[in-house]
Amino acid sequence: MKKVGIVGITGRIGALLQELLRDSSELCLGGGVSGASSPADFAELAENSDVLVDFSRPAATVVAAEFASRYGTPLVIGTTGIAPADLEKIREYSRQVPIMYSANFSLGIQLMAILLKKCSAVLSDLDFSIVDLHHRYKKDSPSGTALFLAEQVQQKAQIVSIRSGDVPGDHICDFCGDDEMLTISHRVFNRKVFAGGALKCALWLTNQKPGVYSMADYLREKIGDRWS
Amino acid sequence: MKKVGIVGITGRIGALLQELLRDSSELCLGGGVSGASSPADFAELAENSDVLVDFSRPAATVVAAEFASRYGTPLVIGTTGIAPADLEKIREYSRQVPIMYSANFSLGIQLMAILLKKCSAVLSDLDFSIVDLHHRYKKDSPSGTALFLAEQVQQKAQIVSIRSGDVPGDHICDFCGDDEMLTISHRVFNRKVFAGGALKCALWLTNQKPGVYSMADYLREKIGDRWS
Amino acid sequence: MKKVGIVGITGRIGALLQELLRDSSELCLGGGVSGASSPADFAELAENSDVLVDFSRPAATVVAAEFASRYGTPLVIGTTGIAPADLEKIREYSRQVPIMYSANFSLGIQLMAILLKKCSAVLSDLDFSIVDLHHRYKKDSPSGTALFLAEQVQQKAQIVSIRSGDVPGDHICDFCGDDEMLTISHRVFNRKVFAGGALKCALWLTNQKPGVYSMADYLREKIGDRWS
Amino acid sequence: MKKVGIVGITGRIGALLQELLRDSSELCLGGGVSGASSPADFAELAENSDVLVDFSRPAATVVAAEFASRYGTPLVIGTTGIAPADLEKIREYSRQVPIMYSANFSLGIQLMAILLKKCSAVLSDLDFSIVDLHHRYKKDSPSGTALFLAEQVQQKAQIVSIRSGDVPGDHICDFCGDDEMLTISHRVFNRKVFAGGALKCALWLTNQKPGVYSMADYLREKIGDRWS
Repeated sequence: MKKVGIVGITGRIGALLQELLRDSSELCLGGGVSGASSPADFAELAENSDVLVDFSRPAATVVAAEFASRYGTPLVIGTTGIAPADLEKIREYSRQVPIMYSANFSLGIQLMAILLKKCSAVLSDLDFSIVDLHHRYKKDSPSGTALFLAEQVQQKAQIVSIRSGDVPGDHICDFCGDDEMLTISHRVFNRKVFAGGALKCALWLTNQKPGVYSMADYLREKIGDRWS
Repeated sequence: MKKVGIVGITGRIGALLQELLRDSSELCLGGGVSGASSPADFAELAENSDVLVDFSRPAATVVAAEFASRYGTPLVIGTTGIAPADLEKIREYSRQVPIMYSANFSLGIQLMAILLKKCSAVLSDLDFSIVDLHHRYKKDSPSGTALFLAEQVQQKAQIVSIRSGDVPGDHICDFCGDDEMLTISHRVFNRKVFAGGALKCALWLTNQKPGVYSMADYLREKIGDRWS
Repeated sequence: MKKVGIVGITGRIGALLQELLRDSSELCLGGGVSGASSPADFAELAENSDVLVDFSRPAATVVAAEFASRYGTPLVIGTTGIAPADLEKIREYSRQVPIMYSANFSLGIQLMAILLKKCSAVLSDLDFSIVDLHHRYKKDSPSGTALFLAEQVQQKAQIVSIRSGDVPGDHICDFCGDDEMLTISHRVFNRKVFAGGALKCALWLTNQKPGVYSMADYLREKIGDRWS
Repeated sequence: MKKVGIVGITGRIGALLQELLRDSSELCLGGGVSGASSPADFAELAENSDVLVDFSRPAATVVAAEFASRYGTPLVIGTTGIAPADLEKIREYSRQVPIMYSANFSLGIQLMAILLKKCSAVLSDLDFSIVDLHHRYKKDSPSGTALFLAEQVQQKAQIVSIRSGDVPGDHICDFCGDDEMLTISHRVFNRKVFAGGALKCALWLTNQKPGVYSMADYLREKIGDRWS
């Protein structure tokens, strides 16, 4: 059993990670820190875990990456809204340890990204838009996932964001022309999808070399032959 | 047969108005002007028509209102994006002649407005949002209709707009809470709905006294008893 | 604190009822039975509770209604798919005790029903359809809620049902004409909405006289003045 | 200029074909027949056209295929709801002449089919459903397009159909699991998409050898390199 250290253990995804770890046969809970924990707590967690999973705030993520690098503990990052300068630091840390960053750990969103890239190649003269609908507590806008999806297409993406109720997360992508509209959309109805996806990637990451990984790297290995 | 003068006769709705007038048993085409027509053309149209229907640009609308007022010809305005100062002028002209202004002449949108008002009274603690999706040629953003719908609710409305392809017009209104979402949405798939609604109102307006009217005034008379 | 007896305590809604009761300041858990419990267990629960809340299977619901009647314990029924003959029995039992039956205890669905009735009066010449989308474990099809919604409109309702994944519950109602479509739809993203609504009704039901109640009766008292 | 003979010239798509042919620089109208035309009319049309485009009824389609075969005139078929026995006859006729059959001539639907096939390979354990929403005049149910889309996936497809108003055509395909839903949907808002797609295929078909073709064959040549 690999020990998972949770960064952001008091958060909503933190709670789901714990719930899933209780039922897992391959991973178990190694401990956890929150944004309010001391650097010493982060250090201890990194030292005693086989892999770290972070769903917290950007400031905590950078600290986690530093200690992950120091103790050689692979790190999975699900926190969004990380500033470019901080992403650069994280990239530096990844020379010592494998770090996976993904704006979204659901399989559906990752597939959606692939579909969008393929469609855009053919529908490059159509208008493209993304609606990102999330709960009112979400800090970043547009969502990290919306930005990630927009990167997949060749044309300019109109992105609009709504923050409303406690919606787990909808993304609606339209290719729209003069006569017809092709829509690829994704809806989360249980946040376990994020926790579950991150844990699958965490297990996989314990066998990788140092470097920066995306969920696409994980997927390529798992589903590559069934896709193309 | 009442004669309808079309302001914006070369536009997309102008073409549909002509098409519907060809089939009408109560209204016929009296003539038309475009944004490029001279003031004399506007004057002649106003003088020779029983009612004017305007789907053009704000500048032309104001001219049409002036001549409508001068010749006592009722005016139906479907042009959107009119600036407050121009709306004020139009209000002045309405002292001499009945003028109906509506951001949207579809029956469905008018019902939607009533539904939103009723829902908002009960769901005032939920978040409210509007997505307005229209063709890429649409000048104003948010749509006049979205602004009209937002006026119906008590809470703050998040309005987001997408301009894409040749979509005739979608409006999606969400009331969203912690556990559930109630959505009222409207989709136009044939722009005839706007032309047809405006013509019904035009016929009705020929029997009204001077003043400013909304489509709600027309509807109240037509459906009031079936609604409450 | 009023004691709530849960019929169907091992089910998904049963678990949520317990969770909400732990946090409630007006209601507490009085006990529970499952479909596998003996008649004696049902009797004891009815005797020792101030109100029963039932989310189980139709067979258990009828037993619960019998003991509710015998011990004068008000009963809230959220079980769907009850056969007409069983509904008749439940109606008989309601001579001794207040019984509320609702196919859906979300506030949003109840509002939707009112909106549909009002729209139908005006849009009676439009086509009407309902899509009911629920998790693959749902036994009844169409959903009880879809049937309830269909009862609100004057025209024939086309109802189609999809059973897929673990969707908590979507209902999409379209009024559709030649040029436009008005849609009223409802989406549950957290099943707590059903448990929470049922508990509010349970508290209210403890102050009612014997008889059959619907959630509309509860709502009329709570929101009536804000609606019309 | 290649001459196009229209089978079903009095129908809705027939009118749009004529409209598009008036503006085309590569194709022109060669004539047309309706379901009420005599066999001699069909023969004359086939003899004098460079390619036939058929949007009619199954009975007329079979007659058109017979004369297309006799006179060596390529045939594009957009009629849906053709019985298996008639499809078999058409296949026989295709030994003498290229015949393309497609349930839907929009580019978006063809892409959707490819996307569904790819998704299904990865999401084979998710539930799959199709909603097909069309105007109330549509004869076949489910739509030919829905059946075509269902053929693309590995899992069982739940197909539900709604016939309502004058909706040009929506298809909504859901892959749904325990926590998330991936949806690929397509909406037509202008029927020109069908006429335009059929004419592009008609031009292409005039350069093909005898045999049965699908729109996928046309697409493979046009977009193949941009897709994979």
